[in-house]
Amino acid sequence: MHVVVQEINRANPDIIKRLGAAGVANVHEAQGRTGLMHANMRPIQQGLSIAGPAVTISAAPGDNWMIHVAIEQLQAGDIMVLAPTAPCDMGYFGDLLATSAKARGCTAIVIDAGVRDTRDLREMGFGTWSTAVSAQGTVKETIGSVNVPIVCAGAAVNPGDIIVADDDGVCVVPLGNEEAVMAAAQARMDAEEGKRARLSSGELGLDIYNMRPRLAEKGLKYV
Amino acid sequence: MHVVVQEINRANPDIIKRLGAAGVANVHEAQGRTGLMHANMRPIQQGLSIAGPAVTISAAPGDNWMIHVAIEQLQAGDIMVLAPTAPCDMGYFGDLLATSAKARGCTAIVIDAGVRDTRDLREMGFGTWSTAVSAQGTVKETIGSVNVPIVCAGAAVNPGDIIVADDDGVCVVPLGNEEAVMAAAQARMDAEEGKRARLSSGELGLDIYNMRPRLAEKGLKYV
Amino acid sequence: MHVVVQEINRANPDIIKRLGAAGVANVHEAQGRTGLMHANMRPIQQGLSIAGPAVTISAAPGDNWMIHVAIEQLQAGDIMVLAPTAPCDMGYFGDLLATSAKARGCTAIVIDAGVRDTRDLREMGFGTWSTAVSAQGTVKETIGSVNVPIVCAGAAVNPGDIIVADDDGVCVVPLGNEEAVMAAAQARMDAEEGKRARLSSGELGLDIYNMRPRLAEKGLKYV
Amino acid sequence: MHVVVQEINRANPDIIKRLGAAGVANVHEAQGRTGLMHANMRPIQQGLSIAGPAVTISAAPGDNWMIHVAIEQLQAGDIMVLAPTAPCDMGYFGDLLATSAKARGCTAIVIDAGVRDTRDLREMGFGTWSTAVSAQGTVKETIGSVNVPIVCAGAAVNPGDIIVADDDGVCVVPLGNEEAVMAAAQARMDAEEGKRARLSSGELGLDIYNMRPRLAEKGLKYV
Amino acid sequence: MHVVVQEINRANPDIIKRLGAAGVANVHEAQGRTGLMHANMRPIQQGLSIAGPAVTISAAPGDNWMIHVAIEQLQAGDIMVLAPTAPCDMGYFGDLLATSAKARGCTAIVIDAGVRDTRDLREMGFGTWSTAVSAQGTVKETIGSVNVPIVCAGAAVNPGDIIVADDDGVCVVPLGNEEAVMAAAQARMDAEEGKRARLSSGELGLDIYNMRPRLAEKGLKYV
Amino acid sequence: MHVVVQEINRANPDIIKRLGAAGVANVHEAQGRTGLMHANMRPIQQGLSIAGPAVTISAAPGDNWMIHVAIEQLQAGDIMVLAPTAPCDMGYFGDLLATSAKARGCTAIVIDAGVRDTRDLREMGFGTWSTAVSAQGTVKETIGSVNVPIVCAGAAVNPGDIIVADDDGVCVVPLGNEEAVMAAAQARMDAEEGKRARLSSGELGLDIYNMRPRLAEKGLKYV
Repeated sequence: MHVVVQEINRANPDIIKRLGAAGVANVHEAQGRTGLMHANMRPIQQGLSIAGPAVTISAAPGDNWMIHVAIEQLQAGDIMVLAPTAPCDMGYFGDLLATSAKARGCTAIVIDAGVRDTRDLREMGFGTWSTAVSAQGTVKETIGSVNVPIVCAGAAVNPGDIIVADDDGVCVVPLGNEEAVMAAAQARMDAEEGKRARLSSGELGLDIYNMRPRLAEKGLKYV
Repeated sequence: MHVVVQEINRANPDIIKRLGAAGVANVHEAQGRTGLMHANMRPIQQGLSIAGPAVTISAAPGDNWMIHVAIEQLQAGDIMVLAPTAPCDMGYFGDLLATSAKARGCTAIVIDAGVRDTRDLREMGFGTWSTAVSAQGTVKETIGSVNVPIVCAGAAVNPGDIIVADDDGVCVVPLGNEEAVMAAAQARMDAEEGKRARLSSGELGLDIYNMRPRLAEKGLKYV
Repeated sequence: MHVVVQEINRANPDIIKRLGAAGVANVHEAQGRTGLMHANMRPIQQGLSIAGPAVTISAAPGDNWMIHVAIEQLQAGDIMVLAPTAPCDMGYFGDLLATSAKARGCTAIVIDAGVRDTRDLREMGFGTWSTAVSAQGTVKETIGSVNVPIVCAGAAVNPGDIIVADDDGVCVVPLGNEEAVMAAAQARMDAEEGKRARLSSGELGLDIYNMRPRLAEKGLKYV
Repeated sequence: MHVVVQEINRANPDIIKRLGAAGVANVHEAQGRTGLMHANMRPIQQGLSIAGPAVTISAAPGDNWMIHVAIEQLQAGDIMVLAPTAPCDMGYFGDLLATSAKARGCTAIVIDAGVRDTRDLREMGFGTWSTAVSAQGTVKETIGSVNVPIVCAGAAVNPGDIIVADDDGVCVVPLGNEEAVMAAAQARMDAEEGKRARLSSGELGLDIYNMRPRLAEKGLKYV
Repeated sequence: MHVVVQEINRANPDIIKRLGAAGVANVHEAQGRTGLMHANMRPIQQGLSIAGPAVTISAAPGDNWMIHVAIEQLQAGDIMVLAPTAPCDMGYFGDLLATSAKARGCTAIVIDAGVRDTRDLREMGFGTWSTAVSAQGTVKETIGSVNVPIVCAGAAVNPGDIIVADDDGVCVVPLGNEEAVMAAAQARMDAEEGKRARLSSGELGLDIYNMRPRLAEKGLKYV
Repeated sequence: MHVVVQEINRANPDIIKRLGAAGVANVHEAQGRTGLMHANMRPIQQGLSIAGPAVTISAAPGDNWMIHVAIEQLQAGDIMVLAPTAPCDMGYFGDLLATSAKARGCTAIVIDAGVRDTRDLREMGFGTWSTAVSAQGTVKETIGSVNVPIVCAGAAVNPGDIIVADDDGVCVVPLGNEEAVMAAAQARMDAEEGKRARLSSGELGLDIYNMRPRLAEKGLKYV
């Protein structure tokens, strides 16, 4: 029942890079406001924006054995995404595992649980998004799976899905949708550029978006 | 039932500036330990202290339409204060709306909900206190009100009330009380200055405040 | 019933210093994964690692009187550890009390409640770990105790126990165990050093720890 | 600064009774989806629906002195509404205070804090809505106010406002609005009666409310 | 992008009935400790055990429009499973919608959000599991989807998956696995029957499961 | 390091019985408002009041192996008290373990984690106080200890301490204090009896406790 899927598909690196530059809010909007992880998935560092293919990890609560297994499956640019099979805030991941993952070209983890050695992780520049910070140690007794579908912080993640993460949180782009999502994100950013200039000059959203008639129709009164 | 109140009273800018310099803890104490928002109202930046008149926004959950409406009502120095009509952690506010608000001289928002584009907001220096960070998009379908009484993070806020915000959180000074509160805050700060010097030199609060007799009377035993 | 214990034992300062350098994750592992405070005990600053003997404070909810009492008992290097007798997120501690504690050589507090004046505390370099940030003022009406056993953020703390705190949280080493714990922590760190080098060079934990046979035995399938 | 307001206005008992029969969901809808307390305000009993004028209590955290003061102000049918000035889950209220309140004709309390003696309260039939159950004792050291505006579980409450409470939670009807709100609630209930019959017979809301064209216009596809 | 899938597969009703009788804990164990919703998914009634095919609903936060759409798709025995696209505790569902669903033979809902009219729902015997009770009204402005994959309270649910719910919570059995899961659950229950008799007679699990050697090997000391 | 202490002291059964009859609120007050577990420790049944000696269990997160070990140590009337070494809401305990414990005369558990088979537990009359209800299965891989000091839901518990539990929560009486605590609780109950009669007749606490002068002195104004 517990498996390690060794071959997964990954999206084109150029698109992945562009999704990372677009950022979580844009990408989330561009795909119809879906794919966002819960707001308690927070970065331990500030100012980092990344994107990469998900190597998914399904792990027992308080057991980080599968991270060792997953590291062997990592390719450069991959992002580990771990979901425990029951809610758990223990410290699954720290600087030794990060050193090992980094040696394979992975530079980020998204984990619906705790991490530790956070100062080391920040110094290493290893991008870390977690739902807790905790030094609480885990065991290596129960197996799980690597590269199977998981639910992480409320979002469904399949292996190879593109993870986009920045200071606002984490968003998941289903593999296969990346071109369409990036096109929509680009269109959105292009449109925003013009709007930003107009708003910056003092023009109002009420006028740019022609909201006044609809507000009046809904019954808004100015007094 | 839903209204935009276009004229509100604002306190004297000099007093507002002094309240901002006094800071949240002082102001909260000076007005009898009232007016503080809940501890989950947190800044997204560090080291910023501000004060300004509240332009209040009552918005439907997951609907940021009223922010566009509110921006037209902003004057230089105003602070937007938004409370959804039901608890909601979605991302009501980001860099485009901040750009628009900034164009009118508003440089801060206090919101009992989520914000996004937090890196951009920090880079813009747009002061942001919120109860969540979330990229989750909102809609523009249901109207609310601007400049009506609201309850934000447990504190009652009326339009024009003075908002004081810093790293410790957010406090509300009812409009009309600002002179008395500032006088009390100043007296408190003046007294603290002397105490700080004495404490810094090693004198004990037990002696400065003459606490020993009352502690003994209450039954405290030294063993 | 309420007492101030004036004489407590303290561990050797050299061991304390070494425990602080070892850090929370190492120390927690070295003593069998015990002694860790809950993950909601968080630092208000980043990058600070400390250790010191606990001066414990049992205080009534919303009442910081006992901190004044405790400060008289502080010796250089001590860490105040405060637990309210019921959960409370009010702001027990701020810059004035920190000034007083600092005058006695204490440079840190661990508190299962709120703190305020957080910007000042950071500027003073006064190490602060708390479960809340809140400007909410406390009273001085009900006595408690100093240097009695307490439970702080889920961890039992006796006076003189060694507190280790860093970006990962707070761990308690029972007084008397410090030599054994430090020895175990040192052994762990020495072992980690070698492993870090091997992992950094691309060797896998699966091989270093010889995990493959046991994974196979548990039924893990590679597909 | 701390006051007991001895004279407050109360609404007509017949309207109050009808609001109680209409229930929280109806009343909340009838007044434009406002006035609802947060979802963590829960009854300790099941199946009780009540309404009554609010006697408001502003109390210090962990201090129930003001309940004694408030009880003297109670008239038959009143409901006590208590908000601590900072979040607190201690047990402010139990069977002795309920006995005293009951002697004055008050049979319910709504409290943004803890209660205790819950089995006794249920046996007495004393309606209790709270945000916590806790035996934790409170003190009588700090004064507060009675019959002043408060914020309770996120809702603004003025003395004399009509409190409606049932298994769904607690809603506040501002004094003076009760006739209009009750009329709207009655209209809503009358309309619901017809709809309930039609829905019960198998007719669909899609048809009763003519939703299909608007759904199609929004782009909903049936596949 | 938003769709209503009108044809879904459903499992054999006999197996579904047996899964309901086996209960959540058994079924969850039988499928390898997977499929359980988070512990905050709680029943509003006590003592009810059910099972049925999922009709899934993806709805915007604070918008219950899609429930009307979903009801048309219900067949006798179905269970509605609703997940908002962002966390939301508003009251999506009450007695009118339950009346409508019941008219089509549906007698239960599982919802990662709030419900209201809870007393009525209990009196109707309409099985309700939710993450909140709230009277807060929702709107009908934004469309979603029916019978698409969703994540509900941390569990992935596909249309037609078998939902098992009782006082312990809610578990999801993927459609297609029901025979194997039921066989495993039955084996587990059969084995438990014998164990229950032995345990009831005073025999120890330590002996029944032959745990003593392994405990000794792990180092457990009796003192 | 992990031990099972086989001999513990237990208090006199008569005193234990009287403490159970006094109830949590009385006992907690009688021992100076100490010993109460956090308010999230809740009963799964209603109306049950118990007391008994604690058999303590320190267990790894998500691992219930030590419950089997502890059951062998149970004597009639004992109450199991389990604390995981890190926060965990998984379902450690269900009807089979309850059957086994009951066979040894134990009829209650207090657990800072989850339980399952809650309907069965209620039907068996097995008193259960927990911080979660969850069917999530646990493993038997990591050893812990029995009858060692633990911290359970914020309260320190030593083996043999008297546990008092009812609808209000759980309180711990340190072994050796039971006579003094019961005497104080009895005195409190006797005094309450007289007060209850006076309060019931309409006399006010303000007068019974002579509060008016002190309120005036504190500055309370009647307006």
